[in-house]
Amino acid sequence: MTTGVRRRMGVEERRQQLIGVALDLFARRSPDEVSIDEIAAAAGISRPLVYHYFPGKLSLYEAALKRASEDLAGRFTEPHEGPLGARLLRVMHRYFDFVDEHGPGFSALMRGGPAVGSSTTNALIDSVRQAAYEQILAHLEVTDPPARLELVVRSWISLAESTALLWLDGRRIPRAELEVQLVQDFAALTAVSAAHDEELRARLRPVLAAEPADGPFGDLVARLLALVS
Amino acid sequence: MTTGVRRRMGVEERRQQLIGVALDLFARRSPDEVSIDEIAAAAGISRPLVYHYFPGKLSLYEAALKRASEDLAGRFTEPHEGPLGARLLRVMHRYFDFVDEHGPGFSALMRGGPAVGSSTTNALIDSVRQAAYEQILAHLEVTDPPARLELVVRSWISLAESTALLWLDGRRIPRAELEVQLVQDFAALTAVSAAHDEELRARLRPVLAAEPADGPFGDLVARLLALVS
Repeated sequence: MTTGVRRRMGVEERRQQLIGVALDLFARRSPDEVSIDEIAAAAGISRPLVYHYFPGKLSLYEAALKRASEDLAGRFTEPHEGPLGARLLRVMHRYFDFVDEHGPGFSALMRGGPAVGSSTTNALIDSVRQAAYEQILAHLEVTDPPARLELVVRSWISLAESTALLWLDGRRIPRAELEVQLVQDFAALTAVSAAHDEELRARLRPVLAAEPADGPFGDLVARLLALVS
Repeated sequence: MTTGVRRRMGVEERRQQLIGVALDLFARRSPDEVSIDEIAAAAGISRPLVYHYFPGKLSLYEAALKRASEDLAGRFTEPHEGPLGARLLRVMHRYFDFVDEHGPGFSALMRGGPAVGSSTTNALIDSVRQAAYEQILAHLEVTDPPARLELVVRSWISLAESTALLWLDGRRIPRAELEVQLVQDFAALTAVSAAHDEELRARLRPVLAAEPADGPFGDLVARLLALVS
């Protein structure tokens, strides 16, 4: 029995090692361009042995994506303390850390990577988006979002994705600026939506009343007022 | 030779008819759920004859997508006259017409349809996004966009896509409101970006100076000022 337990541990450890090796390679080159041979070499094992742990490249890719998804979703967790803008800014900083660390792998995934159309892949991407959505609602202290709030939160999440992808393509704008800008984009899009919806205004008023003048939301208002004057 | 010309015309007409039939069916149910048998029946021809014109469902799907892409890109064309907000609002109206007409086909495509990962499909989607991007730059009278302007235009285009997809899922918000809101989102995101970038402010100032108080941009400013007071 002891041997059996050890063998199962060994298999799982080896799988975790291969996933780590694959993620390292996908962070430097698109998964399309990374072969099983390279993964085997980087892990110091033979190609057939890789296939012993993962029946094909797709299953290794999906396992790597699962770990990366859990990693990313974990970074959305933020204590419910202090002003909302500062919380979201800390999450944006960790989000760009993730995007920075996974570069080509993240791009390939979001633009249609080797497992594109795989239901496992789509479900993992959706689960990360859903985690982001639920975290934002929890911070807004909303449990039954009206349609317009759901729309603004979900569409902002897609804006954050496309902003990160565009940033990766050349990194022409400092990421710290984009982190602030995305927080301010959230405020701006929410303001547009609230400008059309009394219920949304009523719900968001107490949250926004707690924002300090020197936070990212206050900074936006000050900058916009300077712009107008 | 006359016969040859006629036969070629006939082939092309039949192909166009099949594309039209397929688009009609994809507008009611996801392309995944539409069989070649159904397309053949709706066109009044036999299943083998469909395969005579299109070697497989993917090639018919790609041909249908090509026609739909050209249709959509064509709707972005707008005379360079009058205030910018009103021009963008007319384009948004035609965009939602398209989304409305193609419902399930549009959703399936953007969420990963039957041809997902096909390089033809990705190239067509990219060509529509590029057409939208170029139209907006042309209306802004910008030929050499700085990085931040490119980012705000391209990320707004992805916001418009996700907003349309979320709208299709239940249609819980009147589309006319979303058309106005997307125009105002564009103004809001551009304002956030310009608040951080003097060059962008300088470039956009003359464009925005021409906006009337009763246009969608003026409406947003009035609503936001009412919100703050």
